[in-house]
Amino acid sequence: MEEFVVTPWEVRGKINYDKLVKNFGTKYIDESLLQKIKKLTGDLHFLLRRKIFYSHRDLDKLLNDYERGIPFYLYTGRGPSGHVHLGHLIPWILTKWLQDRFNVKLLFQITDDEKFLFKKTLSLEDALNYAYDNILDIIALGFDHRKTEIFIDTEYIKSLYKIALKVAKHLTYSTVKAAFGFDSSYNIGAIFFTAIQSAPAFIEYERNKRLINCLIPCAIDQDPHFRLTRDVAKVLKYPKPCLIHSKFFPSLSGLDKMSSSEEVSCIYVTDDEELVRKKIWKAVTGGRGTVKEQREKGGIPKNCSIFMYYYYLFEPDDNKLREIENKCKNGELLCGDCKEDLILRINKFLKEHRKKREKAKDLIDKYLVRD
Amino acid sequence: MEEFVVTPWEVRGKINYDKLVKNFGTKYIDESLLQKIKKLTGDLHFLLRRKIFYSHRDLDKLLNDYERGIPFYLYTGRGPSGHVHLGHLIPWILTKWLQDRFNVKLLFQITDDEKFLFKKTLSLEDALNYAYDNILDIIALGFDHRKTEIFIDTEYIKSLYKIALKVAKHLTYSTVKAAFGFDSSYNIGAIFFTAIQSAPAFIEYERNKRLINCLIPCAIDQDPHFRLTRDVAKVLKYPKPCLIHSKFFPSLSGLDKMSSSEEVSCIYVTDDEELVRKKIWKAVTGGRGTVKEQREKGGIPKNCSIFMYYYYLFEPDDNKLREIENKCKNGELLCGDCKEDLILRINKFLKEHRKKREKAKDLIDKYLVRD
Repeated sequence: MEEFVVTPWEVRGKINYDKLVKNFGTKYIDESLLQKIKKLTGDLHFLLRRKIFYSHRDLDKLLNDYERGIPFYLYTGRGPSGHVHLGHLIPWILTKWLQDRFNVKLLFQITDDEKFLFKKTLSLEDALNYAYDNILDIIALGFDHRKTEIFIDTEYIKSLYKIALKVAKHLTYSTVKAAFGFDSSYNIGAIFFTAIQSAPAFIEYERNKRLINCLIPCAIDQDPHFRLTRDVAKVLKYPKPCLIHSKFFPSLSGLDKMSSSEEVSCIYVTDDEELVRKKIWKAVTGGRGTVKEQREKGGIPKNCSIFMYYYYLFEPDDNKLREIENKCKNGELLCGDCKEDLILRINKFLKEHRKKREKAKDLIDKYLVRD
Repeated sequence: MEEFVVTPWEVRGKINYDKLVKNFGTKYIDESLLQKIKKLTGDLHFLLRRKIFYSHRDLDKLLNDYERGIPFYLYTGRGPSGHVHLGHLIPWILTKWLQDRFNVKLLFQITDDEKFLFKKTLSLEDALNYAYDNILDIIALGFDHRKTEIFIDTEYIKSLYKIALKVAKHLTYSTVKAAFGFDSSYNIGAIFFTAIQSAPAFIEYERNKRLINCLIPCAIDQDPHFRLTRDVAKVLKYPKPCLIHSKFFPSLSGLDKMSSSEEVSCIYVTDDEELVRKKIWKAVTGGRGTVKEQREKGGIPKNCSIFMYYYYLFEPDDNKLREIENKCKNGELLCGDCKEDLILRINKFLKEHRKKREKAKDLIDKYLVRD
């Protein structure tokens, strides 16, 4: 019986994050590594403090290199098969923080080719439209345009293709099949695609022809791609890309489920105030059956999707977060209180985001690179 | 026991061309089809008359369409893994003739990506260098630059990629494996590649958005690619490309072998006069053991690689060819006579070719299209 599944194209079941570290062969971001980051940046983002980014590959090595004067750049991405939801923002928010703190270049890959190849009913034209839509959300987060290159695969393929070919030559069907669980009914584009996702991990090294590391912040489901990338790096004599992995943003419809394709289980950046209200009121909480019971026994924050929204995104202050947690546990806060408060916070955030998103329409050319 | 093997990447054994027609499911170019071509063009190229181009897919349909006013364009290609030899010229010579006679556009694909992916020791840089080298030979044949677009895959990938993705989405690993005989040790680039070779068969239709047929002159080993292309065409609602298939240029080292990778069995366009002389004198002929025997019994032209050189390329005049054949059969001609004569003809041809090849260096920009 399978407990849970995590691949770049499917995440389901109740995810055991410790098991992923073990199965994937990654390392935990431990206290000493956090202290090292803090030493270099001056502080720690709550996504790191709270171990939402919890796993890594060679981050220690990259930071040691950095201290010795070997630079790095950031690389992350987005598969444009629909609108952006709040969960998608998590890796990008940390990526922005890292860009600001380390003052480094960021490559942002939009994989319209991937989404077209993996989604039966998605046309290439629609994937491209979503790409342009999603780019507005990315720009809205405030990346430094002088240090950020966003590109859409089908419009940047000439820059990616040669490196992708070099990667592809060293990846057999067997290897890719084992890494992703493909069978022979998969299409040949899907099989090839991982080579395209590898390319940005090497492109800066190829361009500069001097040692530069690559740091990839991503949700942990993307790790199988970059395991292959790292294996091939050795053969091609490229530096191995380093990774930091996040957990998945929790679903509103229960913490043992992922949010991805279920409409009501997540908040899209395009959701209006009423829809946000509706979704949050429907959310699964850690509350008790009755008000009386909750006042007596208190709620259970660790089972509460509302609390998780505070934890992951909407209460960056650890003291205030602890206050919410304690007040819930001792019955002071009722679920309705939290829901109303969260609705306000989300709608405030989305209102701001949509403003920045509108402005982003005039900024696209500052970020987008094309062949 | 396998009798012979014909795939796009391997041709060996004594080839049974009738069996290929049967196995591949193509049709013979028969007399009525030849008459139809003649009706439209005014004459017949000797490569057609002599059934060196002997097989087709839907050429009849394409010509009927043409008569009804539906245009077509030509598409052929070259895999640049080394210098061009005389055998490579055969499909291109007919392609030029078709371009001249029908006054149509030609797309010429140079698959540097393919050669890199399939040749273990070939670098991408070397494949690209061979691409530029081979393009000179192509231009030297005199294609009409106003109607010819030559492109190198890695430099034209942006134009090809979207169509290739659409093709790839409809080709499973199973299908490609069966068509080419791949196993799971093949690299993922090699598996994907056929989608890139499909793209030019659809690109003019995509651009024009009006019905235009595509005619692909090629050696018959390329047919498996285009069988897949044709299957996918149906799904994507593109016109199915039509094909005419040539036999392989015979080897100098015996007619039961292919020339491709054996250095002495073929003449490269770069071979100097002395090397041509050496190779031709080493060639396997249909001659007898002694001069005396040959004078008495005559030679056997159908077993003679020298005669095949006349047949395929160096004696376009059927009457003169018959004269050579008869004189050989009745012992008038000795092998040395033919060899000396052929050496003169080849060296004259190559001298001319190399002159045109030099001039081609200044013409590249008139032919080459890049993204």
